[in-house]
Amino acid sequence: MNVTVVGASGETGRSIIDGLLSSSTDFKVTAIVRPASINKPAVQKIKSQGVSIVALELVNTHEELVKALTGQDVVIVALEPFSIEPHIALASAAKDAGVKRYVPSAFGPSCPPTGVMMIRELKERVINHIKKIYLPYTVIDVGMWYQIAIPRLPSGKFDYALTYSSDQVADDGQRSSSITDLRDIGKYVARIIADERTLNQYVFAYNEVWTQNQIWDHLEKISGEKIPRSPVSKKEIEAKIAAAQTKYDEGDKSYQDLLGFVVPQYFYSEWHREDNIPERAKYLGYLTTKDLYPDLEFTKFETYLDELVKGSGVPVYAKND
Amino acid sequence: MNVTVVGASGETGRSIIDGLLSSSTDFKVTAIVRPASINKPAVQKIKSQGVSIVALELVNTHEELVKALTGQDVVIVALEPFSIEPHIALASAAKDAGVKRYVPSAFGPSCPPTGVMMIRELKERVINHIKKIYLPYTVIDVGMWYQIAIPRLPSGKFDYALTYSSDQVADDGQRSSSITDLRDIGKYVARIIADERTLNQYVFAYNEVWTQNQIWDHLEKISGEKIPRSPVSKKEIEAKIAAAQTKYDEGDKSYQDLLGFVVPQYFYSEWHREDNIPERAKYLGYLTTKDLYPDLEFTKFETYLDELVKGSGVPVYAKND
Repeated sequence: MNVTVVGASGETGRSIIDGLLSSSTDFKVTAIVRPASINKPAVQKIKSQGVSIVALELVNTHEELVKALTGQDVVIVALEPFSIEPHIALASAAKDAGVKRYVPSAFGPSCPPTGVMMIRELKERVINHIKKIYLPYTVIDVGMWYQIAIPRLPSGKFDYALTYSSDQVADDGQRSSSITDLRDIGKYVARIIADERTLNQYVFAYNEVWTQNQIWDHLEKISGEKIPRSPVSKKEIEAKIAAAQTKYDEGDKSYQDLLGFVVPQYFYSEWHREDNIPERAKYLGYLTTKDLYPDLEFTKFETYLDELVKGSGVPVYAKND
Repeated sequence: MNVTVVGASGETGRSIIDGLLSSSTDFKVTAIVRPASINKPAVQKIKSQGVSIVALELVNTHEELVKALTGQDVVIVALEPFSIEPHIALASAAKDAGVKRYVPSAFGPSCPPTGVMMIRELKERVINHIKKIYLPYTVIDVGMWYQIAIPRLPSGKFDYALTYSSDQVADDGQRSSSITDLRDIGKYVARIIADERTLNQYVFAYNEVWTQNQIWDHLEKISGEKIPRSPVSKKEIEAKIAAAQTKYDEGDKSYQDLLGFVVPQYFYSEWHREDNIPERAKYLGYLTTKDLYPDLEFTKFETYLDELVKGSGVPVYAKND
């Protein structure tokens, strides 16, 4: 099975590459990378792992893209969502190339399509384009990464691995969210794209479901430290999002200002609204990996936290990628 | 099972009322009508059939609406889509009333959610609102009505029953569309809303699939008349839609100008793009009534055409409704 990955050097992309290469299915993997990225260590690394590299810009290169995607069974996109043009261009090229399954850049939490998270709305525009051109697809969402669901310990013991810490608690901390080890995403993807049941479907891949209190309680138990629980009410987070959105809309549209309202939207959706739980994913039309692949082995959250305590955790979004 | 219908006096609404009242399931049917419509013959007629009538405005009446919908198992909306506020208000009230299944006003052809038909985009906004508030739902689309899929005979023999004739042929007339007798819609609805399999799903209800050439050929056979086939190319219809949309956007937003681009959009979607066929409905996520209810008896298109020839057809959108 010929699989092309776009965005292979990002966090999700690397997990996908690892998952495809270590799968029992025989995937012939190609990565499309921008010409400017061809010498990046991350690209050189996947090349050394046996991935074919194709250097290509994604916008205004329709003919070249169609040529590159012709003969590919599956195309997986793991690009940032903020610039929509490459996503539209890739889907249109995949259609003209006769790609049998297109996996757009979703890989986020379960969330209603509009009215909650700006990022989800951008993804919806891409999904709607796919549907308009009848491109065979699978949308894969993955819940929240273990790696960014963890509060800082007062001692700083975990700081080496916490690119972002998640220190605030929604209200009383009793709400649940689905969490997944970033490193397991590729395992799910490898199963999903070889499965006829998931064609033209949404799939929700997740490892476990935890409340914030359960996370805090467990971390306190294994660390012996008391971790502050600073509650944030729904009203507070809504006001924060509204103010940050105004700042972004009226300001210079910097990436920092963008994150200023996107990050609280994630928190609001995942911990206040409880959008990111399996029951709601099912309501929203997702099949779940628990139903599809009950045998799939994943890293337990407790195991991941033990790794962190032992010092073998790995930070995400490390600067030298 | 308590069912409330909103828009019960419209074409689709009347079919739904008939379907519910003649069903083997015991439905207790209520119709919410605007206070101004309470004395209309169509309302008095369904009242005489045993439907409870509740007179209520739909906008800015949240408390009254919640009260009216409390205890209702199913709410079915068959209102025109152009004014979105009543749809949003009804869904929000149904959520607060604990309605177990909400059937929003879809009842159209299968079509991608955005980028093809303005009417479908309006419906998508309502569906997205429903999903945002996690209101249990079933979206029911029904293809194209028999009643408006028929060309005029040169003799005018059918004119008495053709509120709208469909005289143009898309390109070479070889494309297909799903068609349904308006009078059968209620039968499908009665089955769908009593079926757990259709909860939080999209259902595509249709009777038959015909090409335009098949329709023309059959009509010529049973009438003995030669019916003109005036072909419209994709390019022509796209230009017509674009011009009509500009006129609407820049004009006085009259209902006539609105129909000026909405009607060609239907034609374009149904006959040029072939959106309205079962395979594509399935791609777009619909279950189909052929799979769900293979036993359901419906009026064959040929039977309907025979009725027309015999003079027993009934026009839709008759002026005195």
